[in-house]
Amino acid sequence: MADKKMVEAITSMDEDFAQWYTDVVKKAELIDYTSVKGCMVIRPAGYAIWERIQAELDRRFKETGVQNVYLPMFIPESLLQKEKDHVEGFAPEVAWVTYGGLQPLQERLCVRPTSETLFCDYYKNIVHSYRDLPQVCNQWCSVVRWEKETRPFLRSREFLWQEGHTAHATAQEAEERTIQMLNIYAEFLENVLAIPVIKGQKTEKEKFAGAVATYTVEAQMHDGKALQSGTSHNFGDGFAKAFGIQFTGKDNTLQYVHQTSWGMTTRLIGALIMVHGDDSGLVLPPKVAPTQVMIIPIQQKKEGVLEKANELAEVLSGFRVKVDDSDKSPGWKFSEQEMRGIPLRIEVGPKDIEAGKCVVVRRDNGEKCDVAFGDLQETVEKLLTQMQSDMLERARERRDAQTYEARTYDEFKKTFEEKTGFVKAMWCGDQACEDKIKEELAVTSRCMPFAQEKLSDVCVCCGKPAKKMVYWGKAY
Amino acid sequence: MADKKMVEAITSMDEDFAQWYTDVVKKAELIDYTSVKGCMVIRPAGYAIWERIQAELDRRFKETGVQNVYLPMFIPESLLQKEKDHVEGFAPEVAWVTYGGLQPLQERLCVRPTSETLFCDYYKNIVHSYRDLPQVCNQWCSVVRWEKETRPFLRSREFLWQEGHTAHATAQEAEERTIQMLNIYAEFLENVLAIPVIKGQKTEKEKFAGAVATYTVEAQMHDGKALQSGTSHNFGDGFAKAFGIQFTGKDNTLQYVHQTSWGMTTRLIGALIMVHGDDSGLVLPPKVAPTQVMIIPIQQKKEGVLEKANELAEVLSGFRVKVDDSDKSPGWKFSEQEMRGIPLRIEVGPKDIEAGKCVVVRRDNGEKCDVAFGDLQETVEKLLTQMQSDMLERARERRDAQTYEARTYDEFKKTFEEKTGFVKAMWCGDQACEDKIKEELAVTSRCMPFAQEKLSDVCVCCGKPAKKMVYWGKAY
Repeated sequence: MADKKMVEAITSMDEDFAQWYTDVVKKAELIDYTSVKGCMVIRPAGYAIWERIQAELDRRFKETGVQNVYLPMFIPESLLQKEKDHVEGFAPEVAWVTYGGLQPLQERLCVRPTSETLFCDYYKNIVHSYRDLPQVCNQWCSVVRWEKETRPFLRSREFLWQEGHTAHATAQEAEERTIQMLNIYAEFLENVLAIPVIKGQKTEKEKFAGAVATYTVEAQMHDGKALQSGTSHNFGDGFAKAFGIQFTGKDNTLQYVHQTSWGMTTRLIGALIMVHGDDSGLVLPPKVAPTQVMIIPIQQKKEGVLEKANELAEVLSGFRVKVDDSDKSPGWKFSEQEMRGIPLRIEVGPKDIEAGKCVVVRRDNGEKCDVAFGDLQETVEKLLTQMQSDMLERARERRDAQTYEARTYDEFKKTFEEKTGFVKAMWCGDQACEDKIKEELAVTSRCMPFAQEKLSDVCVCCGKPAKKMVYWGKAY
Repeated sequence: MADKKMVEAITSMDEDFAQWYTDVVKKAELIDYTSVKGCMVIRPAGYAIWERIQAELDRRFKETGVQNVYLPMFIPESLLQKEKDHVEGFAPEVAWVTYGGLQPLQERLCVRPTSETLFCDYYKNIVHSYRDLPQVCNQWCSVVRWEKETRPFLRSREFLWQEGHTAHATAQEAEERTIQMLNIYAEFLENVLAIPVIKGQKTEKEKFAGAVATYTVEAQMHDGKALQSGTSHNFGDGFAKAFGIQFTGKDNTLQYVHQTSWGMTTRLIGALIMVHGDDSGLVLPPKVAPTQVMIIPIQQKKEGVLEKANELAEVLSGFRVKVDDSDKSPGWKFSEQEMRGIPLRIEVGPKDIEAGKCVVVRRDNGEKCDVAFGDLQETVEKLLTQMQSDMLERARERRDAQTYEARTYDEFKKTFEEKTGFVKAMWCGDQACEDKIKEELAVTSRCMPFAQEKLSDVCVCCGKPAKKMVYWGKAY
C-alpha cells in the first residue's frame, strides 16, 4: 500500500506533461517552493546534480585556459545603460535595489541579470597592452530576471549559471573562442547529459541584446518542445566602444578589444528531467548521477544481509554508490530509487547471498540480471557505460522522429497544428516572415543550423528566394 | 630598473601596515575595485585561492554528512522579522529591493545578509517526523551587508561565504554539531592555511543575533590585531519556535527542532595575507597555493633551456606547477612570483643544465639550494611539507609572543597602550565591564577560550569575583 503511494502520486507524462514535470521536481525532492514568488530552494538531490554539471564543465573550461573570477552582484544604473541594445534588452526585467540599510541610495543598483557591463568595466581597468590579452574569465553565480511566469529550473526569477566573458586582440580570435565554447557545450550535452543537440546560429531577431552573433545548442524535450540549452555570443567590438576598452597593439596603435560571452544554467536540470524522465520519475545518465548505484538489502534484519550490502558497496567504491539501510520496506526503497533516477539498483537478500549473486536492475529500461558477486564490479562498469550510450541513442531517435520538414506554408502550418517537434524549413532572411510565423503559428526560429540542407529554393513563408534552412519550434 | 619597480611600489609593513595590505591585494592581483562602492572584483589569482579553500572545506563538510543546497538570495521583509533578535541585528545593514522590472513590489525584499530565516522557512515545510532529521545543509553563496567602511576581503558590502544550517531532534545533537564544525574550522585553519587559532565561546554581548551560544576561532594578524576567522552558532529552539518548525518524535509527541549555523568567508584570504605576507608581497602556504612551484627559465632563448624547464614541469606534474615562459626578464619574473606568494621558485639556465641541477628557492625564508635533476621531485615534496609546517610554527611563535596577561586594570590598560596583541585577563561575566573596557580601551572580548587558565580570582575591570578568563584585543 504505502509502497505504491509515491508512484501513484505522479501524473502520467502522456496525460499531462506539464503536471508530470512539476510532480517529478517535487517528488524527486529536487526543489521546494519558497515564500519568495518565483524563487526556489534547490534541495540536496537537485544541487548534487548541479555540482556534477559544474565539475564537468569547469574542468573542460580550465583545459582551454579559462580562469574563474567573481564580480559584484550589483550594477549601477548608469553602467547598465552604457550599451544601448543591452539595456533595452534587460532593463524591463531587472530587480532594483533602492535602499542600503536605512538610507535611500543616490543611484539605484540592479541585481545582475547578466554581467557584460561589469566585465567591460573591469577589463577597461586592467587591459592596457596586447600583453594583457586575451582575458578568458568565467564566473559561477546566480542572476536575477524578474519573469512574470515561472517554472522550476526552466524559468525562475533567480537562477544559477556560469557566465564566461572574454576579451581578445582580434575579431578572428573572438569568433574562434565563441565557437570553441559552443563546441564544448555540445560535447558536454551529448557525452555527459546524453542530450543530442542541434548547433547553429540565432537569427537577428533571436540573438542576445548587444551581440553581433549568437550561437546556440538546441535540444528537444520528450514532448517535442525545444529547449535552448546553452548560448555563446560574439560581441565584436561593440561593447568595447561603448565602454572604451582599448589596448596598445604590437604595432603600437590603440585598438578596441573583441569580446565574447557564453553561458549555461540550472535549466539543464530541467532538460535532464524532460529528455530522460518517465512515469516512474527521473532517469539520470550515469555520468551526471550524484549516486550511480543504490544497493537495497532485502530482509535486512536477517544475519549477514546488511554486512553483504556494505561489502558490495566497498567492492564498488570506484563508483558513486550508496546502501539504503533505512527502516523502510524494500518496495518503498525501489520507488524512491526510481523516482530519483539512480541508474542502477542492486537487490541483495538471504537467498541471493546463498546463491552467491545479486540482482542488478537498470533504471532506464528496467532490465534485470543476476550477477555473481565476483563479476559485480565489471558488470556495473559495463552496464553504466551501456546505459549512458543507450540513453543518448534513444534521445536522438526520438528527436529525429519528432523532426519534420516543410516545403510549403500549408505543410508548415499543418505540421505544427498536428505535431510538436522541430520543423525544418527554408527562410528568406527577412524578419517580417519570422514575425508572421511567430504570430500565426506561435513558434520561433530555434536556429540556423551549421549543418545546412537545401529543402527548396524558396522561403516557406513568402516564397522569395531562400537564404537559410531554419529549425522552427515551440520552446520552453 | 624595471625589475625593481614591482617591489618598490609596495609600502613596507612596518611603516604602514594598512597601506602594505592594500598594496599587496592590488599588486598580487587578488582584487580590483569596481564602480560599485564597497564591492570588488575577485581576480583570477584571488579566486583561485578561494577555490582551494572551498575544495578543502567542502570535502571536510561532506565527510561529516553535509549536503549542499541553494536557497533564494531574497528575503521578504515579513520573513526577516519573524525572529526578534535576528531582525534587530541585521535590518539596519541590509540592501532592499523595492522594484521588480518597472513595477514597485508589494513587499520589499532584502538581499540576504545571512539565511537563517530562509532555512527556517524551508525546514518548516519539509520536516515533519523524526525520520526527516537531522537536516545538515550548507550553501556556498554571496551575501550583502551594507557596511559603511569597507576593506578588500576583510569587510565588503558583498562577500562570498559558506553557511551551514542544521536542524536536529535534540539539544545535545545540536550542541555536538556546533562544536564539531568549530573543530573542523580550527583544524582547517591550522593544517591548510597554517594559521593557529584560539577556540572559544563569544560573550553574550558579542554573540550572533538570535543564537543561544556562539563559538569562534580567533586568529592574530602580523600587526597583533585579531581576526574572527569562523563562527559556529547553537540556536537552541528559538528560531524553531519563532517559525514553527515542529516534528513528531519517536514517542509520538510534537517537538521543536534544535538548530545550528556556521560560516567562513572570503575574509580568510585577508587572514592569509596578514598572517604570512612580507615586504615582498604575499606568502601562501603550499596546501592553499593555487600554484605551488613556478619554474623560471634563465636565458630562455638559449637552446635547450625552455625544453628543460618544461621537462622539469613534467617531472613535477604531481604538484601544481607552472613555467613562466613569458618574454619578461628573469628578475621581473622573480618579483612577480614573490609578490603572488608562490611557495617555491625553480631557476634553471644553461649553466645549471650543464651541471645537471637547478636552483630551488623557498618563498617564506628565501633559502636557496642547488638540487640535482634526479632529486627534484623528492626535494620539492620535502620542501613544501617543511614550509607548510614552518609557516604554522612561525605564526604560532609570533602569536604567542604577542599574547600578554594582565591581572590589574592598570596593567591591562598599559599593555594595550603600548602593544597590539591578545591580552588574557579575568572577567566577572558582567556586560557592564565589557562595555567599559570597550569604551575606554577600544578593545573587545575576542572569546572565552575553551582552554581556561586562572590568572587571578577577580575581574580585571571591577575587582568582583571572576568567572572566566577572556582574550581581549583590537579586531579587524
